[in-house]
Order: sequence, then structure tokens, then C-alpha cells
Amino acid sequence: MKTEQKLNIFKDIVAIDTQDKDEKKVADYLAQLFKKYGIDARNIEVSPGRDNLIASFGEGEKVLGLTGHMDVVSIGEKNSWTHDPFDLYEKNGNLFGRGTSDMKSGLAALAIAMIELKESGEKFNGQIKFLATVDEEKNESGAEKFVELGEVEDLDALIVAEPSGVNKKEIENNIGSLPLPDEKIQKLLNDNKTQEQHFLIYAHNGSYDYKVTSTGKTAHSSMPHLGINAINNLIMFYNKQEEYFQNTKLVDDTLGKIIPVTTLIDGGDQINSVPATASLTGRIRTTPTHNADIITRDLEAIIEELNKKHGTRLELEVINNKLPVKSDPNSSFIKLVKELGEKYLMQDYPLRAVAGGTDAATFLKGNPNLQVAVVGPGNNTSHMVDEYVNKEIYLKCIEFYKEVIKEFLK
Amino acid sequence: MKTEQKLNIFKDIVAIDTQDKDEKKVADYLAQLFKKYGIDARNIEVSPGRDNLIASFGEGEKVLGLTGHMDVVSIGEKNSWTHDPFDLYEKNGNLFGRGTSDMKSGLAALAIAMIELKESGEKFNGQIKFLATVDEEKNESGAEKFVELGEVEDLDALIVAEPSGVNKKEIENNIGSLPLPDEKIQKLLNDNKTQEQHFLIYAHNGSYDYKVTSTGKTAHSSMPHLGINAINNLIMFYNKQEEYFQNTKLVDDTLGKIIPVTTLIDGGDQINSVPATASLTGRIRTTPTHNADIITRDLEAIIEELNKKHGTRLELEVINNKLPVKSDPNSSFIKLVKELGEKYLMQDYPLRAVAGGTDAATFLKGNPNLQVAVVGPGNNTSHMVDEYVNKEIYLKCIEFYKEVIKEFLK
Repeated sequence: MKTEQKLNIFKDIVAIDTQDKDEKKVADYLAQLFKKYGIDARNIEVSPGRDNLIASFGEGEKVLGLTGHMDVVSIGEKNSWTHDPFDLYEKNGNLFGRGTSDMKSGLAALAIAMIELKESGEKFNGQIKFLATVDEEKNESGAEKFVELGEVEDLDALIVAEPSGVNKKEIENNIGSLPLPDEKIQKLLNDNKTQEQHFLIYAHNGSYDYKVTSTGKTAHSSMPHLGINAINNLIMFYNKQEEYFQNTKLVDDTLGKIIPVTTLIDGGDQINSVPATASLTGRIRTTPTHNADIITRDLEAIIEELNKKHGTRLELEVINNKLPVKSDPNSSFIKLVKELGEKYLMQDYPLRAVAGGTDAATFLKGNPNLQVAVVGPGNNTSHMVDEYVNKEIYLKCIEFYKEVIKEFLK
Repeated sequence: MKTEQKLNIFKDIVAIDTQDKDEKKVADYLAQLFKKYGIDARNIEVSPGRDNLIASFGEGEKVLGLTGHMDVVSIGEKNSWTHDPFDLYEKNGNLFGRGTSDMKSGLAALAIAMIELKESGEKFNGQIKFLATVDEEKNESGAEKFVELGEVEDLDALIVAEPSGVNKKEIENNIGSLPLPDEKIQKLLNDNKTQEQHFLIYAHNGSYDYKVTSTGKTAHSSMPHLGINAINNLIMFYNKQEEYFQNTKLVDDTLGKIIPVTTLIDGGDQINSVPATASLTGRIRTTPTHNADIITRDLEAIIEELNKKHGTRLELEVINNKLPVKSDPNSSFIKLVKELGEKYLMQDYPLRAVAGGTDAATFLKGNPNLQVAVVGPGNNTSHMVDEYVNKEIYLKCIEFYKEVIKEFLK
């Protein structure tokens, strides 16, 4: 396929506005493209207007999954963008637009790699399975659907084409933010022939969303002894949870300590009444060592003790739980990806664990032993205004993916 | 006036939904009623749909003020009520509905007392001035309006018909909560021929409303070190203020310690972001000994220290400040009200200082030497679900008010 066409396919799917909607349009576009090149593809509806896409070819026991999501996050204020966020725009070797980094570049690169391999006529010792999802940014309901349908059970390994790069200048300005000594970082950047430093993300935290509700009893604010202050009781819980988070000894060898953030709080409904309800919501980045079950058990224990000793009426609700992902850095798959990444991205290609989650967290529910490599052309401009992908890296990733597929299924 | 009519007037004004709105409808209703009996009455607009009412008759130097507010607090969840809160409902001698205790019963009783005295044709040595207000529950803007217009300057004494009773059974169950020895309480209840124990409230706390805002910096919840969590910082302040409230040594001889209540809290705007803003609002019942100036100074000091030591961005805003009320228990007015209260309510009638504020706090700004007696048919079910007033007490209060007016203006 010519470079121009590789850019046009990318441009076409960036032009489809999939801000938490309409992924079916991207699925239809890619399905048509796959079929044109003789690759089986079919949509799977997740909810109205929101279809997953599945496409595959090859035969044999071994199965390599390729995945990407089709939704993008909100553009925010359109006026803040230098250029229309749905009209791919090139400047200084970068391609700007919503989803260019996260992750329509990765999605297009995976699809094009498959098509080029199909065109080449080569035979593989196994299958390539392309799984495009909806709704990754919010609920991962697209990934859930694939798990429900058993579509992830046969996978041996999975490439997630989520952004895994950082602009080199940005690393220089923030020296110290990578878990590496400064000299090593400097060497890394010097040896790198491109504008971006990429990483092989082989592990990421899980994500645990919870809500704690405190029920009190309203009363006039002049007679607080006749009421039960739900805010005071909620903060009693907050103080205990902070103590718990700070004192935890559960440190994962790869992912470190859990990362808890209290993100929402709300209580009371008028200034002159003892508040009868209050709640806080938090998101915790979990690890295999300090996992959701442990957190639930421990938060429940805090609540039970407070309810018993202080007569509070606190309740825990687990809203969402995504598993942490931790592949074996010594597995043949991760080693292969690392070796080929170094070659095709023309840089040293360190392994890295990160906090942010991907659809792989959901895929693991249906296939706990899956080896996962998060490697995509995008970078740290994801979710931001004037998001971009580096054009050179986008094109290199196509070659990189092709080679990983060929070598893995040899 | 017949008992049935006294109940119907009360029922009619309970039926008007004045949850922080529409007091004009009550003012219109009462104005029409007053005019029917030949009493001058006029509305005074405070804000659209919210009119104060002023009505008066009699001649002479001495002026007795009668005041009540027309707004009610929110009903909360309507389903929690046994019966429609705007449809006066009788059960076991009690009349249920929002505002029955606080304070449409007191308002109706004052108006009916005036009307019956007018009908009687008696002459008084002075004036009776009925002042019905809007917005007492939130900002006392109705009372402010009367102060602005100079309508409180000529008052010699003021009856505030706010709730001043407690169900006898409740006192028995909470023996010890009144500032009296248990034997005295038991005697009080035994000597009482009604279902409720009432008190002559001659002093009440001031009310200080404040808001503390915490400003942070948003970031993705997987990278909280790039943001500043406004909720965490706000709770740092909360913990310090609680320590301050608990350790204060400032005790007023009449009103005791201040009564602080955190009534509202709010922070964050999405589950996956470090919250950039959070705030809490509180109401503190102040005393002449631990007054608003001292509180502002001390909360500011806490904030300054946190901002300096922990890099928080906290800010204090004083929303509202109502003075404490402390009448002379030996004044002829308070003595008269006590004597007549004992007779008409058929019980011992102790003086009491309470926390809850009234419009009198605002009236004092325009008339600092005003003698205030808070005596009304309502009770401690104010602001609660299934609020009620005791029917017998409601009717007795009308006679009681009539007698206070006659004796004070003899």
C-alpha cells in the first residue's frame, strides 16, 4: 500500500466523530476495507450505533490478537484547538486531530499491517485476529462484549495499539520523571533516531472505582444533637482510608503501591440543616499484590468498625473493577516485541509499567494468562487539545506490527 | 372567632407551598383577612414573589411587635411523609404538615389574636404591630427589609412566635438534656396539664455562616502527582477546624459553647480526574463570648498556616452573620410573659436560652435594646419529616398572646 493511502485511511477514520458514540461508522469503514482485500470482517453490535468489529485470517492453533478502540474522548472547547479536531492536519512532521494519538493511528496501523500481510500472500502458522472495540474511554463495554462472546479465549498474545511514546523534548524537560537515572535517560535520548521515545508497556495498573455513602439524620442546625451529621461521619471514614492507603505495606514488584485518588465528594442539601446524606467516590489504581479483593475487604473492615464503634451508617459500593495487567517480561512474546521494536522504531526500547488502563484489563477476565504488549504510535498528548501523532512513528509502527505478526506466527 | 375557623386559617396557610419561595401568597391571604376585620395591612416586596406583610392598629407611644416568618424549610423526600405535607392532617390531637411547628401555627395564632382583640372593640394604650417576614430560614432578608425601612425602631418589645415547646415524652426519654436536675424536670412534667412542655426563650445564639473553598489542579487520576487534590486539602482544613471547635475554652454564662455544624460539602466533577475544586459550608451558633470576630480570626489563622505549610489554596468567605439575642430576664416584659404563659399554657414556664436563631437577631441591628420573648406553639419536630403542632397548644397560644397584648398595652 502506498504511503498516501496509509495516510488517507487514517484521515478518514479521524474524520468520524466518535466522542463516546458512533463507533459503528468506523467499524463499517474498516469492514469494507478488509473485505476489499479479502479479509473476513463482521460487526458486533454492543449498543445502538456502537458496533465492535472483528476481522481475522490465517489458520492454525496459535492466535495473535490485535486490538484498538474506536471511541475518542471529548474535544472539550472546540475553539481551543488550533485546527478542526476532526480534519487531520500535518505540521512539522506531526499529524493533529482528536484521536490521532489515542488511538486511531494505532487502529489504522494494525488494520493496514494485516492488509499488507494478506496482500503479500505469505502463509502463517496460526491466526491473526483483529478486535476493534467501542466505549473504551468510559466503561470498556466493547471489550466486555468480546469476553462475553468468548472471542478472547483463544488468544495466545495480544498487541494493544494504545499510545506508548513520549516526545523526547518533554522527557528532557522533565528529567527525573522516568524511573531511570538521568545518565541513562540522556543516553536513551541520544541513541534515539526519531523524535519520540517509545516504551514497551508490559504491565499497567487495574482500576477500582468505589463509592462510600454515609447516612445520617437531619435536624435543625441549632440542635445537631438531635441529628446525625452524615458529612462528619463520612470524613471519619475518609481519615481512616487515608491512614490505610498511607500505611500499606503491599508493594508490587512491578507496579509499586496502589494509587488512590478521592475524586468526588458531596453532602448536605441546605446550609441550616444537619446533613442526612454524604458520599465520596474514589478511583484506585490497583496492582496484583494489592488487588480489588484486598481493598474491598479492608475498606469493608474500616466501615464495619466505624459503624460498630461510632454508630455511623456507612456503606461501600464497588462501582467498577478493571484488573491489573502484568505480562511476563521473559516470555518469548515480550522478548520478540522488544527486539523488533528496537529495530523498527530505531531506538532503545525499554520495558515499562504504567498506571493508566486499557481494554486488556477486561480481556484478562476471559483469558487470565494472556501475554499483553501495549505498543502504539501515540504519545502523551492523548486527551489534550491539539493531540497529535508523529507521522514517521505511525508509518514505522505498520512495519513493526507486520514483523511481530510474521515472527510470532512463524 | 370559632375554633373551626381558627383551624381553617391555619390549614389554608399550610397549604401554600413556601419552601424558600412564594411568601407573597401567604401575605396576600393574611392581608385580605386583616382587612376583612378592619385592620390596616400592606405587603412590602422583598424580591419577586416574596412579600413581607405589615399590619397594625392601636394608638400611643408604646409599641408591641408580633413577628413570624412565612417561609418553610424543604420537605425533603415527599415519600418519607406519612401524609401530604401541604394538607393539614390531624391525628391524636396533633396537626401534621410542613410548617405546622415552624412556624405557620405561631403566625396564624398571632394574626388571630390581633383580629379577636380588634373585634372585641377594646382600647389599648399603645400600638400592636404585626411583622410577617420572608426568607427567615435562609438569609433573613425579610427581617433585613424591615430594619432598612426603620419599621423596628419604634418597638418596645417583641414576641417571636417561633416554636418553644418539647413533647413531654421526649423530655422523659432524654432526661438530662435539659439544663435542670432530673427531680426538677420530673416535677415540671408532673405539674404540666398539657402534652408539651413550653419554655420562655429569652436568649438565643447568633448564627455565623461560612464557606471554605479549596482550589487544586486537575490531572488524570492515574497521575495524581501531576495535580493537586482539592478534596484532600479541604479535609485537612476540616480536621483542623474540628480540633479548634472541640478545644475552645470560650463558654458564655447564658449560651454556653458555640455550636458548629458542617452542613454542605462538594468537590470534584468526574470520577477519573484529580478534583480541582472543593468547598464546605458551615453554620456556627455564636455567643457574645465566642463571637463572629473571634471565629473569623481563628479560622483565618488555620487557613493561613495550612496555606503556608502545606501549599494548600484555601479561602474563607463569611456568608452571613446574625447577632446573638440576650434579653434581660428581670425586665417587666419578660416577667409579664412568664406569668401569663404559666396561666394560659397551664404549666410551669421556665426561662430558657437556646441555640436556634430567629429574625430577632436581625431586628436587633435596628433596635439594640429590644426585649425579645420567643414563645410559640411549635415544638422540636421543626424541619423534620411528619412535623406537627399540638392542636390544644395552638389554640391556647391565641388566648395567651391576646392576654400579653392587653396587659403590655394597659
